[in-house]
Amino acid sequence: MKNRQFAFLLLLFCLFLQVTAQAQPLPDALMGFSPTAAATQLSTEKQFDQLLTATNLDEWMKYMSARPHHVGSPYDKQVVDFIAAKFQEWGYEVKIEKFNVLFPTPKLRLLELVEPTPFRAALLEPPVPGDQSSTQTDEALPGYNCFSIDGDVTAELVFVNYGIPEDYEELEKRGIDVRGKIVIAKYQGSWRGIKPKVAAEKGAIGCLIYSDPKDDGFYQGDVYPEGPYKNEYGVQRGSVMDMPLAPGDPLTPGYGATDTAPRLKPEDAPTLTKIPVLPISYHDALPLLEALAGPVAPASWRGALPITYHLGPGPAKVHLKLEFNWDLQPAYDVIATLKGSTYPDEWIMRGNHHDAWVHGAADPLSGLVTLLEEARALAALAKKGMAPKRTMVYCAWGAEEPGLLGSTEWVETHAAELEQKVVAYINTDGTGSGFLGASGSHTLEKFFNEITQTVQDPEKGVSVFERRNARELVDGKPAWSYYELGALGSGSDYSPFFQHLGIASFNLGFGGESAGGEYHTMYDSYELYKRFKDPDFQYGVALVKVAGRTSLRLANAEVLPFEFQHFATTVAGYLGEVTKLADDLRKETEKENRRISTGAYALAADPAEITVIPQPREPVPYFNFAPLQNALTELKAQAEAFEKAAKTNTLDAERAKELNQLLKNMERALTNTTGLPRRPWYKHHIYAPGFYTGYGVKTLPGVREAIEQRNFPEVAEQVTVLANILQGYNAKIAAAVALMK
Amino acid sequence: MKNRQFAFLLLLFCLFLQVTAQAQPLPDALMGFSPTAAATQLSTEKQFDQLLTATNLDEWMKYMSARPHHVGSPYDKQVVDFIAAKFQEWGYEVKIEKFNVLFPTPKLRLLELVEPTPFRAALLEPPVPGDQSSTQTDEALPGYNCFSIDGDVTAELVFVNYGIPEDYEELEKRGIDVRGKIVIAKYQGSWRGIKPKVAAEKGAIGCLIYSDPKDDGFYQGDVYPEGPYKNEYGVQRGSVMDMPLAPGDPLTPGYGATDTAPRLKPEDAPTLTKIPVLPISYHDALPLLEALAGPVAPASWRGALPITYHLGPGPAKVHLKLEFNWDLQPAYDVIATLKGSTYPDEWIMRGNHHDAWVHGAADPLSGLVTLLEEARALAALAKKGMAPKRTMVYCAWGAEEPGLLGSTEWVETHAAELEQKVVAYINTDGTGSGFLGASGSHTLEKFFNEITQTVQDPEKGVSVFERRNARELVDGKPAWSYYELGALGSGSDYSPFFQHLGIASFNLGFGGESAGGEYHTMYDSYELYKRFKDPDFQYGVALVKVAGRTSLRLANAEVLPFEFQHFATTVAGYLGEVTKLADDLRKETEKENRRISTGAYALAADPAEITVIPQPREPVPYFNFAPLQNALTELKAQAEAFEKAAKTNTLDAERAKELNQLLKNMERALTNTTGLPRRPWYKHHIYAPGFYTGYGVKTLPGVREAIEQRNFPEVAEQVTVLANILQGYNAKIAAAVALMK
Repeated sequence: MKNRQFAFLLLLFCLFLQVTAQAQPLPDALMGFSPTAAATQLSTEKQFDQLLTATNLDEWMKYMSARPHHVGSPYDKQVVDFIAAKFQEWGYEVKIEKFNVLFPTPKLRLLELVEPTPFRAALLEPPVPGDQSSTQTDEALPGYNCFSIDGDVTAELVFVNYGIPEDYEELEKRGIDVRGKIVIAKYQGSWRGIKPKVAAEKGAIGCLIYSDPKDDGFYQGDVYPEGPYKNEYGVQRGSVMDMPLAPGDPLTPGYGATDTAPRLKPEDAPTLTKIPVLPISYHDALPLLEALAGPVAPASWRGALPITYHLGPGPAKVHLKLEFNWDLQPAYDVIATLKGSTYPDEWIMRGNHHDAWVHGAADPLSGLVTLLEEARALAALAKKGMAPKRTMVYCAWGAEEPGLLGSTEWVETHAAELEQKVVAYINTDGTGSGFLGASGSHTLEKFFNEITQTVQDPEKGVSVFERRNARELVDGKPAWSYYELGALGSGSDYSPFFQHLGIASFNLGFGGESAGGEYHTMYDSYELYKRFKDPDFQYGVALVKVAGRTSLRLANAEVLPFEFQHFATTVAGYLGEVTKLADDLRKETEKENRRISTGAYALAADPAEITVIPQPREPVPYFNFAPLQNALTELKAQAEAFEKAAKTNTLDAERAKELNQLLKNMERALTNTTGLPRRPWYKHHIYAPGFYTGYGVKTLPGVREAIEQRNFPEVAEQVTVLANILQGYNAKIAAAVALMK
Repeated sequence: MKNRQFAFLLLLFCLFLQVTAQAQPLPDALMGFSPTAAATQLSTEKQFDQLLTATNLDEWMKYMSARPHHVGSPYDKQVVDFIAAKFQEWGYEVKIEKFNVLFPTPKLRLLELVEPTPFRAALLEPPVPGDQSSTQTDEALPGYNCFSIDGDVTAELVFVNYGIPEDYEELEKRGIDVRGKIVIAKYQGSWRGIKPKVAAEKGAIGCLIYSDPKDDGFYQGDVYPEGPYKNEYGVQRGSVMDMPLAPGDPLTPGYGATDTAPRLKPEDAPTLTKIPVLPISYHDALPLLEALAGPVAPASWRGALPITYHLGPGPAKVHLKLEFNWDLQPAYDVIATLKGSTYPDEWIMRGNHHDAWVHGAADPLSGLVTLLEEARALAALAKKGMAPKRTMVYCAWGAEEPGLLGSTEWVETHAAELEQKVVAYINTDGTGSGFLGASGSHTLEKFFNEITQTVQDPEKGVSVFERRNARELVDGKPAWSYYELGALGSGSDYSPFFQHLGIASFNLGFGGESAGGEYHTMYDSYELYKRFKDPDFQYGVALVKVAGRTSLRLANAEVLPFEFQHFATTVAGYLGEVTKLADDLRKETEKENRRISTGAYALAADPAEITVIPQPREPVPYFNFAPLQNALTELKAQAEAFEKAAKTNTLDAERAKELNQLLKNMERALTNTTGLPRRPWYKHHIYAPGFYTGYGVKTLPGVREAIEQRNFPEVAEQVTVLANILQGYNAKIAAAVALMK
């Protein structure tokens, strides 16, 4: 293509930027494409859609979920080989990369109530009628929390609600100290790994986590096999590594767990728990909770078991003994590449893990089969002469469940190349039916919005955007003028790309009409998925259309479809939240301190409930947010200048290529090398998983968490760090604007 | 007392009005008293306090709760005679007035599940260890709802949450119609009588009401006998007459049920239910609810039973057969009078019922014993030369439980005399411990505030006002500058005085630290009360001090302590609520109609849940609230003029007496003869029990309920009615002001 042609196309592309700013794009207007290219692209997408076959999703899920396939299991290797063979068959260049990662599995699990009445927990998930998968108990890993340390502890039990820091404040008011005790916490309310982390910080010596039926059992709906919710035996397995510190192999922090990599001793690994932890069913939890006395739990703590929830400590006394096989196991990453026809060194990456806790029909296979179908169709298009312009890299990650090990080790190993080449990473994981849920980089929000307007909801025959927007309206919220991307926290394989390397990312899936309690249990089976999640894989196909368009448009766009106004608006929202957080915390602290100092607290207290009046807290000072506000003002100005330049200026091909290079690296400019306080692995300063919430995102995390954790000197420090990052980012937009002049 | 002296006293009283306006009264300043009289009064109150003996409360409760004493039972007559003898012993003139009232009792109660699995409800409350009272099952009335009609119905069951109108809207969205069905509703969420009333309006043919453990069973705390909450067998008895239409004997509406009174046939009595109703325990409800299929109940509907709550209809099919003895029974009112030394024709009335559903330790005896102790101490003071200046009338009402029968018939019989003589009616009923709860006429709010500042909380050693105010602060609400009286709805014997005759009233009690599930069950026993409610009767004594001061100050005040600024402020608050209600309803209707018309509702709906999209509703017009706003402006002006006149003017004795007459009748000016729409018995236009909430108060009820019920033409009508009443009221204040000139 000649320079002049390209400049002309860019001009037209810019005109379309203007058009698409009006929320409802013309059918032939695509961000990043000239009209001609857009027409081609739309035709490609139409053919892409026609290639999709729901029965493929069904067959592949059935095959891959036929046996338990956790990390290191024989069937996981078989799944890996199946995936690799498929990619090969479709024409991809396939590599299986193996990392040797720490993957403890249970050797001994003992939980017993020793006082007041002996009871031994069964710790079993029996087969249920009509679910053949659930009979494969021999091959399956039993209920356990991966990266719990070994332990043998006996102590009185304390019920700690969800086991998050606020819960311990309530306990303190009731004169309850968990030092030397074993705590029992409900699942949910935080990522599970937070519970033993906080419990250990508070001095507990052991931690049980159980699934209360209020959260995903009979309280929510009929239990398996009658319905999809957790029956009394279901146990949520899952990692309890300190993932908010860093995911990945605990023995090789920050670098790839290759054969030759140096390794920490497990006892020195900072992300292992400090105390033994075991997840249990509500069948096993009931006798323990029932044996507690002491104050009645606050109303919001109570679950759906037919008991009065008491806090303890005791008289229930519990013996917990755990021993694990501390083995290294292979994490296999399948990496399938289709070289780009035009920009081979610009990669669009697409990933989903393959390892499961047991059969993993929903998690991860429901997402993985959409990735495979996308890859199949895309390869078929390539064969018909519609090869992607950028290189497509499809990844099936191993060892995600224990803590994003396969993806993290791969990213750490290939960091230099990835920083050079990757334009964006698109993740899927478990998916269901109902409403499109999408989180991601807000520099791609406007781009992604276009896609949501074109893919149809299979149930309602309107766009997935329209359906999602109807949800807002029915919930009494203002209508969306565009699809509003959520912020990425953690919990799937985008983390190393996004938060560690600063690569623009998405995480996509459907949900809202497919809830259940099977997550990480023996019952996340093909049988359950087919009955309750997405029986005909219609939403699976819809996800292929959404994710496939995201891949294809990013792969084929003439100008990478990043822009900065949506990002500026989003950051303005976050900054508003953070300043409000400080104000609210200041007011609440003043109020609380006044309640304490005036004696109102003591006067209102029912002596049967509150026995310890809290100490006044350090008042919350006013913070200087001006550097952030000024950086944001500049960001808005630069975002507008970029928009204007994109609309009015033309570029020759060389400068266009340069522009793409700049754009591709923009997300990286939101990271720094030192990362977040006390967790340098997390380098992104706009989005991070919460240090005390786990998966849940904290936006502007350095500043926000300093406020939340009442670390007031750090607020000022982090304001400076973030303002500098934003100003550096602004300069990069300015460079892009200059390039377009 | 000579005229000039009185005028002087009035002047001083007025000065004190000014002082007391500053919230913290001087210890010797009492509203309505000159300094000399105030000093005497305070000395009297001190002696009153010294006479009080907690063990009296204990002994009397023990005696009166020793056996079941419902309407018409032998032991109720014994309780009546006991009370009468006490009053006589103390020097009161005592009358026992008997009314013959309809009081149906169960002859046959049958409840069975006929499909899919046969089950017959036990309908029993077995004795519990450690509670001797609970063994007296032979004498006790079993669980039933009084004024349910006879019936024999078999139909599919539908779960209707609390059975209020909004609940049926949710059912409709799920395509569920209760016509021809039997509904099962939870207790709470409305007064119980609303449930069969609404169910019948919707076409149901039978109604079950059960106590969900979430509301007052194990979810809240340990159950009886371990703790005070409802065990699986506890059944809340209670009236289901259409009390919001009118309380009292259903056969003699609006007039006394004397021996010779004409009587309706039961089948013509408008306040009986239209369908048979039975209350059951959660033990008996569980198999029924468990047998329901159909959609899962909305999250907010679900209780604490260990099941998935389904809505039905069916497959559970229920057979309900009820037969009652439709007998007249005697309702005995004990009326004890101590003639006033100075104003014998001005009565201060004090009442509490004596009949119980079973033993009634808490309801009503905990309140009744405080009334008796007050009467004893007051009589003792009289013997020492400190007789009340106004006549004190102490009443122990019969047949309150079936629907305020004893008090209503008495009030209807003596209406003419009461309208002439009664200054105020002070009610107590069941009481416990913790925080003072007081509702009443806001023309006495300023007066009552003074009392709350002088009585000490027995647990915390501060005034009951301070403790109550600490509750506000801890709940994050603004501090109270004075004790804020609640508005009176219904549920105890003040209703005929207050809402029917327009006599200024109070309802007083303590609570907040004595919750339980014993209400109207076999377990409301002396044993339970002593363990869990107010073991040493310290809060009982505090209530005697509060209610006793209220009686004594009203009895002895030289100028009746009514004023109008607090009332004006309160009505302004109500008017603000009502205009906001209209605005909110308009906005919500617009939103909802938009959700329907745009299709958002249909698009967002999960087809597994919502199957019927509601029809758009009539838009809410703008209403002319100006007549009310103008009347309120005038009320504020007159209240201020009254305050000013009271501060600056003097009166001779004759005019002072006239002023007292005027003041005494002010509350009556808030009524009219026609009463509220469709329920003429309720004549008060500021406060009424809600037509669809029951006990719960609706302030400015004519206007508010017209809006709530979307009866838009009636809004304008009721605005006019209320504005006229308020303007008439303003004229009466003006007359009082003129009198003071």
